[in-house]
Amino acid sequence: MNLTGMMLIGGQGVAGRRDMIRALDPSTDQPLEPGYAGADREQVEQACALAWEAFDAYRETAPETRARLLETIADEMEALGDGLIERAMVETSLPRARLHGERGRTCGQLRLFARTLRAGEWLDARVDPAMPQRQPLPRADLRQRQVALGPVAVFGAGNFPLAFSVAGGDTASALTAGCPVVVKAHPAHPGVSELTGRVIRQAVADCGLPGGVFSLLITDGHALGRQLVEHPAIAAVAFTGSRRGGEALMRAAALRPRPIPVYAEMGSLNPVLALPHALAARAEAMAAAWVDALTLNAGQFCTCPSLLLAVEGEDLERFRRAAANAAAAKPADTMLTPAIHDAYQSALHRLRRTPGVAERAFGQAGGGPYAAQAALFEVDAAGFAARPELAEEIFGPCALTVACRDQDELLSIVAGLDGQLTATLQMDDADLPLARELLPLLEARAGRVLANGFPNWVETSPAMVHGGPFPASSDSRATSVGLAAMDRFLRPVCYQNLPAALLPPQVADDNPLRLWRRVDSAWSQS
Amino acid sequence: MNLTGMMLIGGQGVAGRRDMIRALDPSTDQPLEPGYAGADREQVEQACALAWEAFDAYRETAPETRARLLETIADEMEALGDGLIERAMVETSLPRARLHGERGRTCGQLRLFARTLRAGEWLDARVDPAMPQRQPLPRADLRQRQVALGPVAVFGAGNFPLAFSVAGGDTASALTAGCPVVVKAHPAHPGVSELTGRVIRQAVADCGLPGGVFSLLITDGHALGRQLVEHPAIAAVAFTGSRRGGEALMRAAALRPRPIPVYAEMGSLNPVLALPHALAARAEAMAAAWVDALTLNAGQFCTCPSLLLAVEGEDLERFRRAAANAAAAKPADTMLTPAIHDAYQSALHRLRRTPGVAERAFGQAGGGPYAAQAALFEVDAAGFAARPELAEEIFGPCALTVACRDQDELLSIVAGLDGQLTATLQMDDADLPLARELLPLLEARAGRVLANGFPNWVETSPAMVHGGPFPASSDSRATSVGLAAMDRFLRPVCYQNLPAALLPPQVADDNPLRLWRRVDSAWSQS
Repeated sequence: MNLTGMMLIGGQGVAGRRDMIRALDPSTDQPLEPGYAGADREQVEQACALAWEAFDAYRETAPETRARLLETIADEMEALGDGLIERAMVETSLPRARLHGERGRTCGQLRLFARTLRAGEWLDARVDPAMPQRQPLPRADLRQRQVALGPVAVFGAGNFPLAFSVAGGDTASALTAGCPVVVKAHPAHPGVSELTGRVIRQAVADCGLPGGVFSLLITDGHALGRQLVEHPAIAAVAFTGSRRGGEALMRAAALRPRPIPVYAEMGSLNPVLALPHALAARAEAMAAAWVDALTLNAGQFCTCPSLLLAVEGEDLERFRRAAANAAAAKPADTMLTPAIHDAYQSALHRLRRTPGVAERAFGQAGGGPYAAQAALFEVDAAGFAARPELAEEIFGPCALTVACRDQDELLSIVAGLDGQLTATLQMDDADLPLARELLPLLEARAGRVLANGFPNWVETSPAMVHGGPFPASSDSRATSVGLAAMDRFLRPVCYQNLPAALLPPQVADDNPLRLWRRVDSAWSQS
Repeated sequence: MNLTGMMLIGGQGVAGRRDMIRALDPSTDQPLEPGYAGADREQVEQACALAWEAFDAYRETAPETRARLLETIADEMEALGDGLIERAMVETSLPRARLHGERGRTCGQLRLFARTLRAGEWLDARVDPAMPQRQPLPRADLRQRQVALGPVAVFGAGNFPLAFSVAGGDTASALTAGCPVVVKAHPAHPGVSELTGRVIRQAVADCGLPGGVFSLLITDGHALGRQLVEHPAIAAVAFTGSRRGGEALMRAAALRPRPIPVYAEMGSLNPVLALPHALAARAEAMAAAWVDALTLNAGQFCTCPSLLLAVEGEDLERFRRAAANAAAAKPADTMLTPAIHDAYQSALHRLRRTPGVAERAFGQAGGGPYAAQAALFEVDAAGFAARPELAEEIFGPCALTVACRDQDELLSIVAGLDGQLTATLQMDDADLPLARELLPLLEARAGRVLANGFPNWVETSPAMVHGGPFPASSDSRATSVGLAAMDRFLRPVCYQNLPAALLPPQVADDNPLRLWRRVDSAWSQS
């Protein structure tokens, strides 16, 4: 693939003016060409100004136009073929099959939003007909549609170079909603970002849209990210990454003269509750499947199941033994960046020195400079409850098993958990009474509750929720995956007694877009 | 009506322990009995703790139970008869007919939410059936329902002692969503608050619900309001009031260790655009209707139309002359509180001394210590654009007319406006071309766009939006009136592969609640 080392600002390839950013092949520690000179303040300003200029035209494009934009992006990402996958492989060290799957998911998500735009009922148009005879006051003719919030700043994630990056769920849902997007690429994969960005830039041009609809900034510093969040043209922020990063953006956005929403998905422990009957029936199989889920792609998932809770006893010991064996057999796996690897090593070091926490197993060593060993630790419930730092996410293939004295202690540990993206019940039918007690606690603390299986895979479908109470995400009312992701970038407008000639087509009398709409209170397509 | 001077904490009448708060009859300047001793920190703590304790039980009540709660509140507010209205009259000086209408609106809103709970499709339950054969990965069974966010702190508004106060839209929508409510009563109408609060307390008891579902705190200071917003049990805040008050709550909520959403409705200028053909055709009638809307209840509406924009010329002069005559004939009207009256007087004083701003007319004087005279001021567009303070809301029957040189200058003034609750086009058919240019600007800046009429009345219906871009409200995605008000207090939860025996009824296979649900992507009631 021919990489230029340039950013994209409003449709133009532009060389940065700051320090050179160079991706690294984490499996060899070798820097990769080309270098990308970072954006300066003026370039951030320019991207935001162009997004603002493009906003009025873009938000009023027909749904069909935006649907074609999304499909063109998906088609052209596929047309990049193996070149895109191979660049992603060297920049992230993620395996080929995973990246193929990730591209499939990314393109599937773009096409899902395209279908959604055409179907239209997700836009929730409403019509309350006038009631001129109503007493004591007549009712006016009222109509409601959703309009785009404004330009969105997207911070690409490091761990999904395609699905949560330049053309990922945040960009796709913002473009669906009618919002121009300014992406701050993750500095660990500038090459993949450039390739994906060029696809979007070309699709924007092919669909006859203004270049400001999409810009891609490459920068390594926090200052320019903050400038982006504080820019008056930016109306919302989407971020996937660390809690510290997310909280910094939340505060910056809240302290603007005009505060804006931040949708930060900051990860979580994703507790797995191994209930007694399931544990008795299949401790070994459950342990093996759990260690697979835990170590998949070096544990670099927001949904990595890194906390296991169970009641102590022989079944739990069988489980731990099997998990230890499985973990010990896992080869070390290269992490995304040296910084992530360092943070993982430091976290392991801290855990090992934490009183009450016991090492149980380590995976195989070796495998290159930034390879992570799987690691299993154990603690009892009292020790877990006494040390809040044990409830902080460790990004990587490391897990903590918490042994509870009895079911009451299990319930109390769950009640003490912070917000989570997911919570998983490993359960059999005989566990139902306990599961019933746990469910209200779990749904108050997690965006998604699973029975059996593991949470790594996040389906892009109408019912998915990828978000959860703080600190899993900044806003538990939102999801960053699934159809409702676009709701983050929409706001309702009500039209009162507007003449027919002035009404937008979504709420016009003859329903020219053939949308499902709520007319009075009933669904109707007429 | 027998008033006790007590607050309500978790079902109990409780005397405060701080300084005595006494309502004032603003028409006579006489203090009213009884005094209400203010809440102390411990009492705020207690109300929040009880709300938290009640949360788990309340959120899982059947929709029918919550519907009955809302209807019982409405029935019993009506059963209070004239006693409630008369207490409201002396505490606010609002006229009897207005307060009767306001109670009708409050009870209508409660019953609307009750019907909504029974109908259920507004809860947006979703079912994505499993696809076990899908390649390359099967799809899990995914279901989504909305769950309650947690206890809500409601700050009652001063200007609507019923509809935006203790049993107003915020309380009604939070109770609908399944959230316990802690109300901080507005200190200007503690008697009405106590009467309404007792109705809710009794309805909670009659429906067999825990007392912590509702508490009513009476306090005069900002410190306890802040304590409420910062309390870990509180999951969301609803506020109607001044921009300064709303921004203080927004910042406090954003800087909590666990940030929570604040829905602050902070008012706006509600610009009226008198377009040229409409102005030519009916300047005098439009002016009279505008002055009526402006001076209704001393202009004490969030939706008071206090900014008029038009192109200069003879028609605008006809309009201004007629408006001046209408305003001059308006009797002075007593404001809600001495503080509001003082602020109004100071604002008029500032306006009179603002270079470029001309006085045009004053209403009649007299009418008691806190009566406000209507006031009309004028400025040209350049003067308006040069002085940002002219775009700050003045709460009261005062308006500013801005004369633009031409349509381009009108468009540019509109483009420079901050977020608004409403924007009104006074237009005739011949104004359509200009209205088409204005509409995108208006819908990007206002939650509701009207043609003709005036914005004071806010319908409680599915399509209503009472909110708007900052600073009209803290969150333009939300409305505090209409059905979508309850969405503010809900969050989605996804259930993956849960056994049928564990699924909540909203998403169960046999649809026991007969809800309209989105099954895959189609609406279905089966």
